[in-house]
Amino acid sequence: MTGRPTLAVVGATGAVGAVTLQILSQHADVWGDIRLIASPRTAGTKLSVRGVETEVVALTEESLRGADVAVFLVPDEVSARWAPVAAAGGTVVVDGSTAFRADPDVPLVVPEVNAGALRTRPRNIVASPGCTTLSLIVAVGALHAEFGLRSLVVSSYEAVSSSGEEGVEALRRQLALVAHTRLGTHPGDVRRAVGDATGPFPAPLALNVVPWSGVPGADGWSSEELGIRTETRKILGLPDLPVAATCVRVPVVTTHSVSVHAAFEQEITVERAHGTLATAPGVVLFDDPETGDFPTPADVVGTDPTWVGRVRRSLDDPTGLELFVCGDNLRKGAALNSVQIAEAVAAEASA
Amino acid sequence: MTGRPTLAVVGATGAVGAVTLQILSQHADVWGDIRLIASPRTAGTKLSVRGVETEVVALTEESLRGADVAVFLVPDEVSARWAPVAAAGGTVVVDGSTAFRADPDVPLVVPEVNAGALRTRPRNIVASPGCTTLSLIVAVGALHAEFGLRSLVVSSYEAVSSSGEEGVEALRRQLALVAHTRLGTHPGDVRRAVGDATGPFPAPLALNVVPWSGVPGADGWSSEELGIRTETRKILGLPDLPVAATCVRVPVVTTHSVSVHAAFEQEITVERAHGTLATAPGVVLFDDPETGDFPTPADVVGTDPTWVGRVRRSLDDPTGLELFVCGDNLRKGAALNSVQIAEAVAAEASA
Ligand SMILES: NC(=O)c1ccc[n+]([C@@H]2O[C@H](COP(=O)([O-])OP(=O)(O)OC[C@H]3O[C@@H](n4cnc5c(N)ncnc54)[C@H](OP(=O)(O)O)[C@@H]3O)[C@@H](O)[C@H]2O)c1
Ligand SMILES: NC(=O)c1ccc[n+]([C@@H]2O[C@H](COP(=O)([O-])OP(=O)(O)OC[C@H]3O[C@@H](n4cnc5c(N)ncnc54)[C@H](OP(=O)(O)O)[C@@H]3O)[C@@H](O)[C@H]2O)c1
Repeated sequence: MTGRPTLAVVGATGAVGAVTLQILSQHADVWGDIRLIASPRTAGTKLSVRGVETEVVALTEESLRGADVAVFLVPDEVSARWAPVAAAGGTVVVDGSTAFRADPDVPLVVPEVNAGALRTRPRNIVASPGCTTLSLIVAVGALHAEFGLRSLVVSSYEAVSSSGEEGVEALRRQLALVAHTRLGTHPGDVRRAVGDATGPFPAPLALNVVPWSGVPGADGWSSEELGIRTETRKILGLPDLPVAATCVRVPVVTTHSVSVHAAFEQEITVERAHGTLATAPGVVLFDDPETGDFPTPADVVGTDPTWVGRVRRSLDDPTGLELFVCGDNLRKGAALNSVQIAEAVAAEASA
Repeated sequence: MTGRPTLAVVGATGAVGAVTLQILSQHADVWGDIRLIASPRTAGTKLSVRGVETEVVALTEESLRGADVAVFLVPDEVSARWAPVAAAGGTVVVDGSTAFRADPDVPLVVPEVNAGALRTRPRNIVASPGCTTLSLIVAVGALHAEFGLRSLVVSSYEAVSSSGEEGVEALRRQLALVAHTRLGTHPGDVRRAVGDATGPFPAPLALNVVPWSGVPGADGWSSEELGIRTETRKILGLPDLPVAATCVRVPVVTTHSVSVHAAFEQEITVERAHGTLATAPGVVLFDDPETGDFPTPADVVGTDPTWVGRVRRSLDDPTGLELFVCGDNLRKGAALNSVQIAEAVAAEASA
């Protein structure tokens, strides 16, 4: 590339696309042209990026031609079809869908953790992990670098916006249906109030939690739970790491939380863990429960870092640690990580 | 005792007391007199039990005299002061508070799991566990009896009614404050909407989750988290069992959920675990995610059993199992377990 590189944002009109345009407008500007691309349905719409109204164009070979980097924020099947087209035309693709995450020829990158993996991309495609993996991996990766991770048990508290605008609307509608009532103490009353307004979820989420996200995988696991295991192993370069995940949806709009039980290769203390986390890039340590300092989604939403609190050394295992982490699923969990990867690719080209 | 025994319900006017009176009215009637006792504040109130309007009397030595069994559903300090008074007068005390749970001379009883422990009660006091322990212990106890438990990692999703009517009111008020808004996607907007209406919780619960319940214990642990470890060990008779718990409050009115990672002494399969759980007393197995069958608080509230779903064999450890359990924190988590213990004491006396 000569001059400043051209970026294509494919899926600019979606939930993750909207946050991506915000982030591009806030970050130091490394881009020449920024093209906004979506489906033919929304072509012609105008969106603002870097303060400039920009027309959205339909995804075609032509629309991608000459782009140095393309960030794909579209459904899996659209990525599967179009990312290789862009890559064949010489564009480096940063893909946010699940389509390429498990492909051994596609690096799965979290810049704070495994930036080096970016260098080898035989298919000209780089994948960004799922939002639940992204909400814990920066903190866990920093601890792994210091103490050597031996196993993980995680339980999630997942926000509805990872099911897109449809998920957010469903929760808002359900909350309106149950508000101002005395609901929640009798069998079936929440089900009756919510009726068929469950939206993309298999059960009501207002006044409820739902132990399911994703689609059915093998042996009773959900695709989300299997994804956390596969992605964590790949990012950390630990192909045999034991990982047990349970994914649960909660009535929160944006920001995933994860309860993490981690065992390490060596003894660990809360002090040493605090020391590592306090200086880890992309991590905010917020851990003093006696004064009410622990991360909650309401405080983390809209921010870039991974927040960590409730750090405790396991009482029965000097190599074990418990932590509670929160990360905005639309920012670090999706848009921000993709933009960071795209910026790293741009920097490498101009170096 | 001659004839049918007399029961005293101490704390009859509270949240757990109300459910206790309901349960006493539904169960096969083993009691002669049932006395309702509370503080002098509510003495004179009339409450219905077994279809009979009964006057509440103030807690005094006199009010307890001659009671064969007394169920205490009152704050810790009231139990600490009054349970020994009742016990000294010959009444068997069933205490629902934390005051005696760790006392080695007080059995901690869950009838489905360790009914035998009831026989030895040197202080004439029997304790009932905390609601989070109770929401998992019937299922985990059944698996332990069959496969031998080796360790537990648990993360909770706790309903607000375990903080009493005050907690329920706080959530209802907060939901009204955030309903019909576009809240939840900007930093601080939930905090601003909820203001100082956080009630007994250290942070807003509407559109949020809060990784804290109980009071501060040692080394960053909460009293609830330490309680789950101590109580589980005592009930199962496994004084060295490794237990790591993280307690998180969620915007649900009633019914606690727990994500459980359990390792056993031997290999386990989902089929064998299903076989054990399907026939365990007090357990409902509800586990077919492909058809949407997994327990959620909205479906479990108001029911007696412990519901279990999402049973999966750990992918990296043939002795490991994941499960998701739900139990009504006011019923099995408090009132029901105390009534079951009281009924077992009554049966033993009449045998
Ligand atoms: N939400 C999250 O927390 C999150 C986190 C990590 C990863 N992801 C992944 O990011 C991707 C986008 O998610 P989202 O929540 O932003 O979804 P979304 O709100 O439904 O947006 C989908 C985007 O894809 C575009 N699109 C759909 N079909 C297309 C086609 N045939 N050709 C071109 N563009 C097409 C849409 O354009 P139109 O407006 O023209 O239809 C829209 O811009 C998904 O792969 C998702 O799994 C999401
Ligand atoms: N809620 C749960 O899920 C749960 C679960 C397990 C265990 N527990 C335990 O059960 C107990 C009761 O909980 P709760 O939620 O029902 O509390 P609550 O709604 O606040 O009720 C407290 C009860 O104690 C009575 N009381 C208070 N001070 C008294 C005194 N000095 N003398 C006599 N009675 C007095 C109150 O009577 P007045 O109405 O006269 O004030 C009321 O009946 C607590 O120890 C709690 O930790 C609760």
